[in-house]
Amino acid sequence: MITSLQNPAIRNIVKLSKSKERREQHLFVIEGARELSLALQSGYRVESVYVCRELFDKTKYPGVLDALPDTALFDISPAVFGKIAYRENSDGIVALAIPKSHRPGDLRLSDNPFVILLETVEKPGNLGAVLRTADAAAVDAVIICDPQTDLYNPNVIRSGVGGLFTVQTAVCTSEEALTWLQQHQISIYAAELQAADFYQDIDYRQPSAIVMGTEAEGLTEFWLHNATKRIKIPMRGKIDSLNVSVSTAVITFEAMRQRGF
Amino acid sequence: MITSLQNPAIRNIVKLSKSKERREQHLFVIEGARELSLALQSGYRVESVYVCRELFDKTKYPGVLDALPDTALFDISPAVFGKIAYRENSDGIVALAIPKSHRPGDLRLSDNPFVILLETVEKPGNLGAVLRTADAAAVDAVIICDPQTDLYNPNVIRSGVGGLFTVQTAVCTSEEALTWLQQHQISIYAAELQAADFYQDIDYRQPSAIVMGTEAEGLTEFWLHNATKRIKIPMRGKIDSLNVSVSTAVITFEAMRQRGF
Repeated sequence: MITSLQNPAIRNIVKLSKSKERREQHLFVIEGARELSLALQSGYRVESVYVCRELFDKTKYPGVLDALPDTALFDISPAVFGKIAYRENSDGIVALAIPKSHRPGDLRLSDNPFVILLETVEKPGNLGAVLRTADAAAVDAVIICDPQTDLYNPNVIRSGVGGLFTVQTAVCTSEEALTWLQQHQISIYAAELQAADFYQDIDYRQPSAIVMGTEAEGLTEFWLHNATKRIKIPMRGKIDSLNVSVSTAVITFEAMRQRGF
Repeated sequence: MITSLQNPAIRNIVKLSKSKERREQHLFVIEGARELSLALQSGYRVESVYVCRELFDKTKYPGVLDALPDTALFDISPAVFGKIAYRENSDGIVALAIPKSHRPGDLRLSDNPFVILLETVEKPGNLGAVLRTADAAAVDAVIICDPQTDLYNPNVIRSGVGGLFTVQTAVCTSEEALTWLQQHQISIYAAELQAADFYQDIDYRQPSAIVMGTEAEGLTEFWLHNATKRIKIPMRGKIDSLNVSVSTAVITFEAMRQRGF
């Protein structure tokens, strides 16, 4: 059992909280038995799993380690787990896994796709919340253009409660995303406060993508110019802004309602 | 100008980040010129305002101090502001204001009210996001039952971007809220994962309240039992959970869509 906080493997896990380290080592951290289970189901390669047995005894997902070779499992003490865990009420699992590539060309689409596109998403928590919504609505894919945060940020995994593993995602430039959308004949609805059309008056029953900007700046001219239509959510209050994960969910669920879910 | 971090007034502002201090002193902290402006507009009594001129020079709300007496204004240095500010990119304003009472009996309702009720909300960020949604949708009121966080938590004000000041709110027990809803003949729709009815099949065009539980535990038996109907959002993914501010927004905007906004 690993009991030393100075153990090189443990120190390396702490390092992987940094984007640069994740990129260079081509590894990222998954915390939680449920998240690990979802990652394994969706074909992520898991290199090693650090298990704090005291906590893992109480997990709701006791079978998660069954398919892994013993050589990939390392027992750790509660103190060591405390050092590498991000969350409260965690169930004793920290795994290292290998990132996937996220090219638009790899996305497999249904016959009538619905896609969420985020331009320049800044906060990992917002990206995680969008992935969670995308899972619930069973959208075809989430495309992230020119992100300021990387997909494997621990806060994306945490706030997405595993959505990163259940939702198809692509990361690319806005130009690449536009080309891909046009190739697949997907209509583009760009959300902005000043749009002429209300989101609820749009027909989303054909192949559709919604494009969401940042809360502070909205969408760039690129997406406003290239959109099939610009749409807005009615704002009847004094504040004139919604959380980006909230506006994404409101439009997405309206689309799903029109499609009969 | 106050330049000392040890100044008693400054030290007291730091103390007010604690719920207990807010309750005992009957004061809370508002950061940001926009938030202060919204609080003043909705009749909050402001006791004092601490102004960092270097930052306030760049505010988009330069008129916010005009209605305040000079005796309530105190200049502070950037270092002092840094000590008492919570946010990044803040515009140099920290104010102390007096809480309002939040009794259901004080709520003024429209002819056809729509109310959001949160049972036992835990995270200030979720409460803030709901208030922001409530502002955008112009709901009649948000009622918070048995909260684990207080309304004047700095994170509620920050994540609500002022929604706390633009939305009518009440805080009470579940029993008081039920009595109030019944007195006003408001139908009660309780959200739960196992409900029989889908949210989009409900007619919200009559006086309606939606009741939302915590993400971890859902609603208590009290609200499930006393609801007019139990409703659910279709969950078509693998995760079976949405952020509570997201599910609140999805149902609220469907109700507003039915009502023609």
